[in-house]
Amino acid sequence: MRILEAEDRDYTSAELETLTGWTSNTIRKDISWLGSPAGTVSGYAPQKLVPLIREALRLNRRRKFCIVGLGRLGSAYLNLDSATFGEFELAAGFDANVNRVEILKSRIPLYPAYKMGEVIQRFGIEMALLCIPAEAAQKTAEKCAAAGIRGILNFAPAAITVPAKITVRNVYVKDELLALAIKTLPLDG
Amino acid sequence: MRILEAEDRDYTSAELETLTGWTSNTIRKDISWLGSPAGTVSGYAPQKLVPLIREALRLNRRRKFCIVGLGRLGSAYLNLDSATFGEFELAAGFDANVNRVEILKSRIPLYPAYKMGEVIQRFGIEMALLCIPAEAAQKTAEKCAAAGIRGILNFAPAAITVPAKITVRNVYVKDELLALAIKTLPLDG
Repeated sequence: MRILEAEDRDYTSAELETLTGWTSNTIRKDISWLGSPAGTVSGYAPQKLVPLIREALRLNRRRKFCIVGLGRLGSAYLNLDSATFGEFELAAGFDANVNRVEILKSRIPLYPAYKMGEVIQRFGIEMALLCIPAEAAQKTAEKCAAAGIRGILNFAPAAITVPAKITVRNVYVKDELLALAIKTLPLDG
Repeated sequence: MRILEAEDRDYTSAELETLTGWTSNTIRKDISWLGSPAGTVSGYAPQKLVPLIREALRLNRRRKFCIVGLGRLGSAYLNLDSATFGEFELAAGFDANVNRVEILKSRIPLYPAYKMGEVIQRFGIEMALLCIPAEAAQKTAEKCAAAGIRGILNFAPAAITVPAKITVRNVYVKDELLALAIKTLPLDG
């Protein structure tokens, strides 16, 4: 949306496909769902479209997330460019290992895991990146749930079970590789 | 599949849902697509089911991938437990920065980016995790394509364009957060 807002011209759905990676078909359908006319004869007008999207998705307020588990993957995400997270604010990092929390250098405040409940409430954190080894993922997901987290992005290579009011999305690298492998099957044999 | 093979009993689609995170509905549909009867009255028999899946997905041979870009995220993935990658073999890491390649410690062989073509051909590497900053992602994706990579898992927060014969899957953390944020909308206002 930042790209769109920067330029004062209309965009076709084909251009939006190139910019976003979504198909032009999906884009047209989704925009029509917004209900209000954002289109012109030459495409979509960013000045009309962006506010409609923000309103529909209630992105007017900045929403916060945290990283739980500051091992290799968690601490990598901790220090990635904030552009990686788009409109969302990385507000805290947690690890069960108090030593690690004290030693890690980060511009984001870090806390031992036993403070999750308190910090998550105080900062109004809604979502968590779960960067935990498979064997500890379930237990940690339950701690997130107890601390008031309402959405979990699970990077652990394990399925987790949480109360229905909490949304989970899984980033399973092995499933992604599998999907790629299937789509790149050799044509012979 | 390893979990299934370890136990000599049948599994219901509900049990498979708990184990995998896929819905029982999807599981039943996918298994029926395999064409051959893998089901019994008490569920699915792993001894029949696993070989059918492996054959359908041509997973009989071990398929290789590499990591391109050994910054924070790439080097984190480089050293994750191999269970993260399931049946796939991490065969090499590449970075444009020759210094970084020499300094990084890793059990996986690392190479400067200019050797991509040679190494990818020699090892028979088919897929790449693209762990590159947004501004360099397109150029690096093109290098992957030129080097013979046929599937790209793109972690860069940028859409990439490659020849149609190459499959791309995007892991956009900001889009995942957006999906979570939308599903965890506050019920009020």
